[in-house]
Amino acid sequence: MIKTPYLLFLGDAPDALAAKVAQGIRDWRPENAVGQFRLPGCKADLRLPNMTLDEARSAGAQTLVIGVANRGGVISESWMEVLVAAVEAGFDIASGLHTLLRDQPRLVAAAEANGRLLHDVRLPAVKYPIADGVKRTGKRCLAVGTDCSAGKMYTALAMDAEMRRRGQKSTFRATGQTGILVTGEGVPLDAVIADFMAGSIEWLTPDNDADHWDHIEGQGSLFHVSYSGVTLALIHGGQPDALILSHEPTRTHMRGLPGYALPSLEALRDTALPLARVANPACQVAGISVNTAALGEDEALACLKEIEDRMGLPAADPFRQGAGRLVDALAAI
Amino acid sequence: MIKTPYLLFLGDAPDALAAKVAQGIRDWRPENAVGQFRLPGCKADLRLPNMTLDEARSAGAQTLVIGVANRGGVISESWMEVLVAAVEAGFDIASGLHTLLRDQPRLVAAAEANGRLLHDVRLPAVKYPIADGVKRTGKRCLAVGTDCSAGKMYTALAMDAEMRRRGQKSTFRATGQTGILVTGEGVPLDAVIADFMAGSIEWLTPDNDADHWDHIEGQGSLFHVSYSGVTLALIHGGQPDALILSHEPTRTHMRGLPGYALPSLEALRDTALPLARVANPACQVAGISVNTAALGEDEALACLKEIEDRMGLPAADPFRQGAGRLVDALAAI
Repeated sequence: MIKTPYLLFLGDAPDALAAKVAQGIRDWRPENAVGQFRLPGCKADLRLPNMTLDEARSAGAQTLVIGVANRGGVISESWMEVLVAAVEAGFDIASGLHTLLRDQPRLVAAAEANGRLLHDVRLPAVKYPIADGVKRTGKRCLAVGTDCSAGKMYTALAMDAEMRRRGQKSTFRATGQTGILVTGEGVPLDAVIADFMAGSIEWLTPDNDADHWDHIEGQGSLFHVSYSGVTLALIHGGQPDALILSHEPTRTHMRGLPGYALPSLEALRDTALPLARVANPACQVAGISVNTAALGEDEALACLKEIEDRMGLPAADPFRQGAGRLVDALAAI
Repeated sequence: MIKTPYLLFLGDAPDALAAKVAQGIRDWRPENAVGQFRLPGCKADLRLPNMTLDEARSAGAQTLVIGVANRGGVISESWMEVLVAAVEAGFDIASGLHTLLRDQPRLVAAAEANGRLLHDVRLPAVKYPIADGVKRTGKRCLAVGTDCSAGKMYTALAMDAEMRRRGQKSTFRATGQTGILVTGEGVPLDAVIADFMAGSIEWLTPDNDADHWDHIEGQGSLFHVSYSGVTLALIHGGQPDALILSHEPTRTHMRGLPGYALPSLEALRDTALPLARVANPACQVAGISVNTAALGEDEALACLKEIEDRMGLPAADPFRQGAGRLVDALAAI
């Protein structure tokens, strides 16, 4: 578990998109974001107070989070100066970069000398069990997509936020590095050893109050041949009570797989639900989350209405409309 | 790739079952088994020539394969004496034990001093790619089970042996440690990182002659919540042209999962085939492999007939009857 709150390191981000991890923290856990640290030339700005390392420590920040992608997979000298100074100032460091903090000798030496932790959230830090399939108490919701990168994480974060806003018991359960940095904990599922995938999700979503919902971050798609095994492990380890179908209506083929068409929402429902019922016979499809970012307002509303009428399920874009109707749908389960 | 042929190390096996890896090599690749090495008290006997290390080297053996499970997960002193002497005599060593050869300092030192290789086949030795889903040439057959440990490896080995006996082009593709030791190569799929599972199977079953069949060793079951993700990665990475349904008719619940009933063969067919067609739209279910070891002859034949009539597909027990009818069924695809 990563100590909060954070100082968000934006480095020399070439544009706002490069700092999307920091933006995610800012959007979803603003209470964790004490300030931002920008290097000369940084083009991203989260509208947080610019702070020196000492100012952020004085404001209570415990961990410097690398909230920006590094160019070319290399941690540059200008970054390294800041990271080493941060460790010396008393910060832990957390990173989702492919380039690992633990592979940087100078940083490792500084962390050891100062008794600080380096969190590489792309790698599992826990020895997960093999799944035992035993039914757990509490409720779980999982978004499954017609494709990868269709808005599953956003949907889970938005539904969790809406439930907490309503005073209901809810936890977002991160399964990827961005989600882990947003919340400070989770399972980097794509880096887990095959035999322990489902067990890692059982571990992530333990017994809970009967009226508590885990919103488990989805990964991949049952129809994406590169990652489908990860998705099925999520479904069987997560034992969801509710599935949300997740869809981006303008895709012309599966992400990264030219020649592979997207499945219909009907095919997704008819494939995912029987598989989910192996682990939880009571599972139901609760609603549909549609990422309409590529559509204008009228087009988006027409698209949502068509899907809702066709599928007989609430269909909403949680970014455009909020997650209220999807949360309402859970109450009906 | 492990150098063949082998000297099979049976150690102090308490019974024949403990030496099942060695038995598999003896049964399926007798040309790889030069002899056996037994310690005092060994209760397993493969009816191979008992050889000293020097005798086996003189007979051409290149690798000493640990063909026996170790008790308590510990490599005993009596084993270690033999393994070190084998390395000094010029053998590589191959092992599928949970306890790794590479974690034994004395053995590692001896191997380095003598320029020999230590193969821990439970761990991947290759950096696998992420699957790209591109259609490959040649044919592929995969057994999918109603449960784990239902006879999928045996089925693939038997079908491969039958095709080669007929002079047809065929390769068994190992995905588990026993299969890897039998053939000397393969992918230890249960130990592969989640993101690379399907890619490892694409790597394992590359482009081949149009009339060549890969018989891919199956793993897990789509209905076994602990390992289903591994199974789906096999299906999508393998792009099978033919599925064989694999079943053990006397199981009362899923292996290791009390409370989980086995699916019907119909449910297995209706779940596996649409998923397989995502990666290979031409995929068909070719036949059914039934493990009737727990049944008497009459019962077994009645069981096979009932399944064959009900499913409208050839049903055979390759151990009891040979794999001829299942191989015939491939020709019809």
